[in-house]
Amino acid sequence: MKISKAKIKWVKSLQVKKYRLEEQSFVVQGLKGVTELLKSSFETTLVTGTPDILDAVRLGAPHKKKVEWLEASATVLESMGSFQSNDTVLAVARMREPLIPVANENKYFLALDDIRDPGNLGTIIRTADWFGVDQIIASPQTADFYNPKTISATMGSFCRVNVFYTDLPSYLNGVTAPVYGAFLNGRNIHHQPFEGGGVVVIGNESNGISPAVEQVVRNRIFIPGTGQAESLNAAIATGIILDNIFRSK
Amino acid sequence: MKISKAKIKWVKSLQVKKYRLEEQSFVVQGLKGVTELLKSSFETTLVTGTPDILDAVRLGAPHKKKVEWLEASATVLESMGSFQSNDTVLAVARMREPLIPVANENKYFLALDDIRDPGNLGTIIRTADWFGVDQIIASPQTADFYNPKTISATMGSFCRVNVFYTDLPSYLNGVTAPVYGAFLNGRNIHHQPFEGGGVVVIGNESNGISPAVEQVVRNRIFIPGTGQAESLNAAIATGIILDNIFRSK
Repeated sequence: MKISKAKIKWVKSLQVKKYRLEEQSFVVQGLKGVTELLKSSFETTLVTGTPDILDAVRLGAPHKKKVEWLEASATVLESMGSFQSNDTVLAVARMREPLIPVANENKYFLALDDIRDPGNLGTIIRTADWFGVDQIIASPQTADFYNPKTISATMGSFCRVNVFYTDLPSYLNGVTAPVYGAFLNGRNIHHQPFEGGGVVVIGNESNGISPAVEQVVRNRIFIPGTGQAESLNAAIATGIILDNIFRSK
Repeated sequence: MKISKAKIKWVKSLQVKKYRLEEQSFVVQGLKGVTELLKSSFETTLVTGTPDILDAVRLGAPHKKKVEWLEASATVLESMGSFQSNDTVLAVARMREPLIPVANENKYFLALDDIRDPGNLGTIIRTADWFGVDQIIASPQTADFYNPKTISATMGSFCRVNVFYTDLPSYLNGVTAPVYGAFLNGRNIHHQPFEGGGVVVIGNESNGISPAVEQVVRNRIFIPGTGQAESLNAAIATGIILDNIFRSK
């Protein structure tokens, strides 16, 4: 069946956070993301794509009974996405309540201090998933987990990583495990032992870690570089820190 | 003096590669990039911004004689940029001929095998600069160095890193230093010794390293992860590999 004009309008409305919250629904674009979504425990309500891709995806998800499968032209699909590369398939799923991560002496998780760019947030989630980190705490000013650009940049990892938004200073104050954060005057990460578990704080793209959060960072680390760049991109720093943590495990 | 309509149109035209080549000019957006540009050996021809920022930038670059300084409203500036965060200052500079990097037993450089996204390219350049890598070889299909999104994502590092576009397989064939590339069946990077110099190949965002380039990758490495993500973002992999190389230096 073909997608209706009203449905197209509804999907487009989910680009906006206010409507996502009202509808408790979000959009997943592209073949990789939609395939991972259908394998996950998220409740998928709608899949729309060009006839050939739609058939292929549907054949791969025979157990999904409650999904509405609707055909759309490539042009219509592009108009529903927030950017171009949507691989001619798009799905809508129901949001779910994030779990409150419990700090644990044996596990690492991330704390994001105002990561504003949805693409950066998505890449950080994908990187966390690569290293088996499945819990992230994020400040209320961090980009929205359900923003289509975030979801898209995760390359399917949104299904496996839990992001919980809360006030960072008060949350981190209650954590007894080590809290790490990157600062220019920190300890060379190559000489930093990482044992047990802990929290890694990743600062804002322009301003780094905020003063209030800095108060609760008990272990200052530094990624050494010999070049002249002033800083590393937040997602790149996340990848390097996690690789350093897991190499000593 | 205020920027003219004709000049606004000309700056806008530089969003398109064809016109950048014709004019041999490119756009730098935002305070960080413009400041670095004025400190560099690039020939800056035009700086435009809101009056206050323009004055501040001009005061910081008293030696720049040939620059045209033009005032513009925030709205006009936004219309000239390819995206929003342009910090109300923008510059135009002359392109320069990239140098041909010479492989060197004592130095590392990167080879980019079809990095298509300008944002990824810019982040890779910024990351290279952090680690002091100032030479990059790129396949002809790699995003344009002078794309405003590339320049912007480098956060000023475009001034210090040289990107040379050429056919990768034939270039790499002539390299006697080790050529590294990340593959799922590669050697754990934590156990890989990095001595002397070499080339690190970074594959395309979707398809990884192409078959023709794979032939000349003599050292397969692998970034270990215990999670379920299928791959790492190309720029993240670059950061982790460079950190592993420079920690053993």
